[in-house]
Amino acid sequence: MAPITVLHPQVLPMEKVLRDPIHNYIYIQHQVILDLINTKEFQRLRRIKQLGTTSYTFHGAEHSRFSHSVGVYEITRKICDLFQRNYPTQNSNDGLWDDHERLVALCAALLHDVGHGAYSHTFEHIFHTNHEQMTQQIITSPETEVNHVLRQVSDDFPAQVASVIAKTYPNQQVVQMISSQIDADRMDYLLRDSYFTGTKYGNFDLTRILRVMRPYQGGIAFNFSGMHAVEDYIVSRFQMYQQVYFHPVSRSMEVILSSLLKRAKDLYEMDQLPHDFAYETLKPFFDNQFSLKQYLKLDDGVLNTCFSIWSECDDHILKDLARRFLNRKPLKSAKVNDDTRSLLPTLRNLIAEAGFDPYYYAATNDSFDLPYDSYNPSSKKPQTQIELMQTDGSLIELSTVSTLVKAISGKITGDERFFFPREMLAKGNQLEIFTPVYQQFEKYLHNDRLIFPK
Amino acid sequence: MAPITVLHPQVLPMEKVLRDPIHNYIYIQHQVILDLINTKEFQRLRRIKQLGTTSYTFHGAEHSRFSHSVGVYEITRKICDLFQRNYPTQNSNDGLWDDHERLVALCAALLHDVGHGAYSHTFEHIFHTNHEQMTQQIITSPETEVNHVLRQVSDDFPAQVASVIAKTYPNQQVVQMISSQIDADRMDYLLRDSYFTGTKYGNFDLTRILRVMRPYQGGIAFNFSGMHAVEDYIVSRFQMYQQVYFHPVSRSMEVILSSLLKRAKDLYEMDQLPHDFAYETLKPFFDNQFSLKQYLKLDDGVLNTCFSIWSECDDHILKDLARRFLNRKPLKSAKVNDDTRSLLPTLRNLIAEAGFDPYYYAATNDSFDLPYDSYNPSSKKPQTQIELMQTDGSLIELSTVSTLVKAISGKITGDERFFFPREMLAKGNQLEIFTPVYQQFEKYLHNDRLIFPK
Amino acid sequence: MAPITVLHPQVLPMEKVLRDPIHNYIYIQHQVILDLINTKEFQRLRRIKQLGTTSYTFHGAEHSRFSHSVGVYEITRKICDLFQRNYPTQNSNDGLWDDHERLVALCAALLHDVGHGAYSHTFEHIFHTNHEQMTQQIITSPETEVNHVLRQVSDDFPAQVASVIAKTYPNQQVVQMISSQIDADRMDYLLRDSYFTGTKYGNFDLTRILRVMRPYQGGIAFNFSGMHAVEDYIVSRFQMYQQVYFHPVSRSMEVILSSLLKRAKDLYEMDQLPHDFAYETLKPFFDNQFSLKQYLKLDDGVLNTCFSIWSECDDHILKDLARRFLNRKPLKSAKVNDDTRSLLPTLRNLIAEAGFDPYYYAATNDSFDLPYDSYNPSSKKPQTQIELMQTDGSLIELSTVSTLVKAISGKITGDERFFFPREMLAKGNQLEIFTPVYQQFEKYLHNDRLIFPK
Amino acid sequence: MAPITVLHPQVLPMEKVLRDPIHNYIYIQHQVILDLINTKEFQRLRRIKQLGTTSYTFHGAEHSRFSHSVGVYEITRKICDLFQRNYPTQNSNDGLWDDHERLVALCAALLHDVGHGAYSHTFEHIFHTNHEQMTQQIITSPETEVNHVLRQVSDDFPAQVASVIAKTYPNQQVVQMISSQIDADRMDYLLRDSYFTGTKYGNFDLTRILRVMRPYQGGIAFNFSGMHAVEDYIVSRFQMYQQVYFHPVSRSMEVILSSLLKRAKDLYEMDQLPHDFAYETLKPFFDNQFSLKQYLKLDDGVLNTCFSIWSECDDHILKDLARRFLNRKPLKSAKVNDDTRSLLPTLRNLIAEAGFDPYYYAATNDSFDLPYDSYNPSSKKPQTQIELMQTDGSLIELSTVSTLVKAISGKITGDERFFFPREMLAKGNQLEIFTPVYQQFEKYLHNDRLIFPK
Repeated sequence: MAPITVLHPQVLPMEKVLRDPIHNYIYIQHQVILDLINTKEFQRLRRIKQLGTTSYTFHGAEHSRFSHSVGVYEITRKICDLFQRNYPTQNSNDGLWDDHERLVALCAALLHDVGHGAYSHTFEHIFHTNHEQMTQQIITSPETEVNHVLRQVSDDFPAQVASVIAKTYPNQQVVQMISSQIDADRMDYLLRDSYFTGTKYGNFDLTRILRVMRPYQGGIAFNFSGMHAVEDYIVSRFQMYQQVYFHPVSRSMEVILSSLLKRAKDLYEMDQLPHDFAYETLKPFFDNQFSLKQYLKLDDGVLNTCFSIWSECDDHILKDLARRFLNRKPLKSAKVNDDTRSLLPTLRNLIAEAGFDPYYYAATNDSFDLPYDSYNPSSKKPQTQIELMQTDGSLIELSTVSTLVKAISGKITGDERFFFPREMLAKGNQLEIFTPVYQQFEKYLHNDRLIFPK
Repeated sequence: MAPITVLHPQVLPMEKVLRDPIHNYIYIQHQVILDLINTKEFQRLRRIKQLGTTSYTFHGAEHSRFSHSVGVYEITRKICDLFQRNYPTQNSNDGLWDDHERLVALCAALLHDVGHGAYSHTFEHIFHTNHEQMTQQIITSPETEVNHVLRQVSDDFPAQVASVIAKTYPNQQVVQMISSQIDADRMDYLLRDSYFTGTKYGNFDLTRILRVMRPYQGGIAFNFSGMHAVEDYIVSRFQMYQQVYFHPVSRSMEVILSSLLKRAKDLYEMDQLPHDFAYETLKPFFDNQFSLKQYLKLDDGVLNTCFSIWSECDDHILKDLARRFLNRKPLKSAKVNDDTRSLLPTLRNLIAEAGFDPYYYAATNDSFDLPYDSYNPSSKKPQTQIELMQTDGSLIELSTVSTLVKAISGKITGDERFFFPREMLAKGNQLEIFTPVYQQFEKYLHNDRLIFPK
Repeated sequence: MAPITVLHPQVLPMEKVLRDPIHNYIYIQHQVILDLINTKEFQRLRRIKQLGTTSYTFHGAEHSRFSHSVGVYEITRKICDLFQRNYPTQNSNDGLWDDHERLVALCAALLHDVGHGAYSHTFEHIFHTNHEQMTQQIITSPETEVNHVLRQVSDDFPAQVASVIAKTYPNQQVVQMISSQIDADRMDYLLRDSYFTGTKYGNFDLTRILRVMRPYQGGIAFNFSGMHAVEDYIVSRFQMYQQVYFHPVSRSMEVILSSLLKRAKDLYEMDQLPHDFAYETLKPFFDNQFSLKQYLKLDDGVLNTCFSIWSECDDHILKDLARRFLNRKPLKSAKVNDDTRSLLPTLRNLIAEAGFDPYYYAATNDSFDLPYDSYNPSSKKPQTQIELMQTDGSLIELSTVSTLVKAISGKITGDERFFFPREMLAKGNQLEIFTPVYQQFEKYLHNDRLIFPK
Repeated sequence: MAPITVLHPQVLPMEKVLRDPIHNYIYIQHQVILDLINTKEFQRLRRIKQLGTTSYTFHGAEHSRFSHSVGVYEITRKICDLFQRNYPTQNSNDGLWDDHERLVALCAALLHDVGHGAYSHTFEHIFHTNHEQMTQQIITSPETEVNHVLRQVSDDFPAQVASVIAKTYPNQQVVQMISSQIDADRMDYLLRDSYFTGTKYGNFDLTRILRVMRPYQGGIAFNFSGMHAVEDYIVSRFQMYQQVYFHPVSRSMEVILSSLLKRAKDLYEMDQLPHDFAYETLKPFFDNQFSLKQYLKLDDGVLNTCFSIWSECDDHILKDLARRFLNRKPLKSAKVNDDTRSLLPTLRNLIAEAGFDPYYYAATNDSFDLPYDSYNPSSKKPQTQIELMQTDGSLIELSTVSTLVKAISGKITGDERFFFPREMLAKGNQLEIFTPVYQQFEKYLHNDRLIFPK
């Protein structure tokens, strides 16, 4: 570690550690990293779950964005160590690792998610906030503690860190550590989510992947001998999406949350939302005029407190949805496809007939992901493809040599589901008067899919 | 499982499972268990961390009382299965297992912590609430969903479940499954806290312990061949207390929390607490007149929301303590003993000289535990000792045959620490004016202990 | 377990256990299983490594066929328990599980590999022995202890057990537990080999797969909800073949072993093999006239002892090959394909020029596997395909719903490699006289492949 | 790693790895380490089980001395890395780490067990060989490949490496890495034996212990903050001895082995041992005149082959004992103590009456260990005690601060057992004629102990 001392005067006299279930220890070797972790903006990540509604399906998945963020930092630190040990630059054009880049890489890794809010995905959809913009703002706004710490390094350091996260930083090795198809972010969340959910799908071989990573002129490549380790990572990621991230029960809780926020917003716009703590807290977002400080006040606990207040309010729908969310009463669902999408109006009508406003109690939700793609300049979001380096130094793209990766490369996978109240499936304890409606509704469901009744 | 069907008409046609990182799966085989999990009182446990401020030290320890509760249920279920398989009663006096007890055992296991509130330990200390009473009330009060579900079994079933938790239930086998020195509760929390903190101390051999458990007339004993597995459990528990539960940083965060709640209460009593959401929420507790419903509203998120409100209030101390708690600014500490306790007034004075009100910014906190004890009828809380059954059926108490257990048996272990603001340790970035005070203060600290300065 | 007692009078009064790193415990509940494990034919499996030369690549993989065999037994036992608990037959035509089949299934599982010899694959290739025939013989021959134990159950029990292994037993559920594309044998070896090699590829979710297994008229199917667990198993198996079982270094040690045995046989046929212990031990196999007793004498230690004797003999080639094998001096290799196969005579000539007899020092070795196949009646070895059962009871073949499985279904994968002495790669410490030969040879190698030199 | 390059010209251009289930990877960074591993003397360790007869009790424990040896190397390498990173020497008297010592430490770690033979403990007892002397000889004798490789470093390097293992090397830090109460040897075998047996007792927190290790003038100390990690290691070691290493079944197999070798030696001395391969192989040891080459020929496989030959011989006792050993027919046993030792002659007589020669079929075996001791200059083997370094740099001995360690410190623990044929416990399938003898014998056994019959 002598090289660090030379390059970075901010090195701590004695490294500090955080105990971590995934990486065993997180090693903190720079004062600036320690100070960043101690900022209030970063500590706030302790109060935001990494996986939002997923813990409603996998009760172990209660880990926070804080623990993921320090994990991404730690993987990045390991990559820097490895690069410095095995591939230190000798001259400026050799495409090898320049350890002067270490600090910007570590800070970007640590802060890449610092702008996330509670239940981000759904919240952003309803309120048009954007956690990536907030991350940039927290890093570059002079009012934050994070910015204050970063400026201790140099005046332009906050902008540099922000540009790594925005992928505009010139050194592609640093950018790809944090953002690529096989980056520290994805590697940490797969391992971490797998550990905390208790599923085994995300459990690829991190040590082996780190061993075969190497810098080159164009960014980061992988030694050909590690092809199967990289393949296994891609397959693990694919399986985690299929099994955990796209789980219908978690998505149904998101649907409820979305309806709940929509209902509150609709009431606000009709001036029917009670003027209480929830009102005051969310008003800036209903109005889409909020300060950074107001944004940073929102965490899982504050939002849940709002829902708890609403669970006692007078509006029947808001109250009911808040209770369904807090007390975990998921909706039921079935797959819908291009053929059966035409059935949705009929189904919504039946739901309305059974006494539920389909605007809030029925929804489609699609979850799709591109597990891997080779570089495609014509796509909307061209991906940095994964390159393997052969013995002679030439590069070869992953999917050309892996049967498994080829099978899922470039294919968007997932499903679209139609969500509806569990009450639509008559089980005998609903109102008898609606039994014919329920029976009619069930004719459209078979083997977890919508069908045209015979 | 056919025997279950016979004994319990409520058996589900097909068992359901929850994925769990500790037990792999939680198996749910009775309708009443499924219904209890779905009550709002039980779902509320998702919003209360199992280890409170420990996650400030071990960031992975963000698991909830929900996950622990289903874990205790699952271990109890496994014990029932084992007892029914290997030691089914043949006649009413043989001291073997009567599977009619299964349902009451399972429900008591699931519900044993249902009355816990947010940051229970500290909250109860300040507000004189009692989670054990609340557990009894949730089970027996006709206004709860839990009680409603339990009454489906029989009218006196809620009272039976409550009596198991209160240890007054006649069948000692059932009582000891849930409450003894080696019960399902302790076994689950050691394994679970070990897993989520990422430490390894709590990781004893559950399968082996279950294998050697056996019912007898007086309760539950262990086959002699399993002595070392039981010993290892006792040692693991001892080590978890020393290493995790008694960690000074977590305790310092508890000290802050305690001061914060004290300050709020003091302001309330002086009628200086602002009338806002926090005020409304906590008023019944300041007055010590609260309903079950009000109690059930409190969870980690609601309390943290109160603290967030206070972190912007006008009272300097309340604001500062709220910020220290939310943004994790732990106090420092040193061990104090009978010799050095006399130093505390001097140290409090120095703290006051440096500008901190010692009533809120200095405190002693002791953490002591009795790792194991043989039965001692004269003690305040006599423990059910651990008995080993020899080949000839005779019983022998654990500490008489285990050197390690004997070493810690009957000895209360832990430490008492004095907590003070980190600012008292001059590091150059405090106010220069107080430097002499800091220097004086530091003379009383050496090797993590208070000392008499030379 | 009461049902077992009724069906099988041989149930032990108290179950016994073996500690196992994969399954934690192996539970032994029948006298006949305990007695089979204690036979000398079964104990002999302790002296035969499960993975032969693989431990030369992965030094942890030193586990024996004994530990795998008890593992296959344990998985089978778990399947029987699950089937009996959830799918007990009610009448003879319902396609559900008849627990009278338990004992024959358990015995077949335990004994399915009892006929394996040392380094089976290579040994059988040279000496035309057949471990499957030997398994049948050990079970059915009245001279073995295994047969004696099985006959305690009934006179025709040995034949029944043998027929399960031969796949001719009428109950397809029993046959498929032991032999199918997802059977107890494969599940145990993937988990076990993964654990002992220290790789992670083979680590699928056994508990989940067992949960979704179910008997039906045609054998064993899987609930549709478990599709991804089954998919993950297929992918794991594919990856273990690619990464572990087909590893070039292990294969090169097999090539050496094959040459060594060939050389010994050639010398024997020329009557030039010294008449010592190795000669006496292997003579029946050189002559292809051996008794069961002679076969059972061969284990890893006995064969290695023969090689140790040969490592001091006068024949230069036999001595050298024995030393290369015992002292782990692997050959080097490169991939060969249809295009480059024509280069082999040239390369063999260069090897001869460098002083090595290519008949013993050069070889091609292909390792191919069919990771999964749907049922194909026209194939040489039609596979029992994996069927998923939908909610309505209908069956659907795995590869029609899994993108990953479809990608590898029906495709034989692996590679063919050309093996040659490491000395052919001039590194400066070989004989200078051959340097031009080495340099010529190296022109045919590039990126781990044979090429046509430019 | 740049420092390594400077200090050791033998550094490999690119590190190599071995996959290892305990340490994930073994990193090889020096040519001399790679060459040592490839010597025939070191490869021979693959053919010797680490735990001898323990695999008869824990079938997973089939790992070899090879895998343990590379593990000890790896832990030593990690300690050197840590010392060089955090405690590099600045001047010759500062008591910090001098990285010039790295290579001698690594070689000593790798080779510390290279002189072990098959079933060392028992073999040495009967034949008066000594594996420690053999280790010294293999390192220093010019006839070995190991010596040849070591001499590449310098002429006196073999002697240096040997002196580290003999504990006479001047630098105590290097000596204590390999040999002390908490050294790389013990740490590897606890973790490895725990993993392969599948027990959990040996599973302490290696990473944490490595973190708190630090060099000082007198050798190696541990930061006080790591007290509990060190304590846990001592407790784990204690438990592994109690649970695994002292297991009565493994010891009974050792007793059989001892009797078997004794019988062969007795027959040899009476010139009644048949002149076959076994005779030739062991003759130098019967005569106690053997060469290094002859010693190195002996491995588990060769000895088992001898036993297999004897299992067909004419001598009834030799044949029977060989079969009991190969086919795992353990003796039974009971604890004996100072009171009951006087019963042994009576019991031996009963064994003789039942037809067994007690000289071969009865034995006492004691297994005792000193789990930890503080330095005691008057003891026969004074131990280097474990020192904890406090914040102010002062040292404090472990047992003075750990209740658990104090409990077992200086206390020799274990038991003495009397072993006898299982046939002495009449179960109905022995010869009826001896039933009264068996019944008489059983009166002396109760609760796993010898007793005076009432």
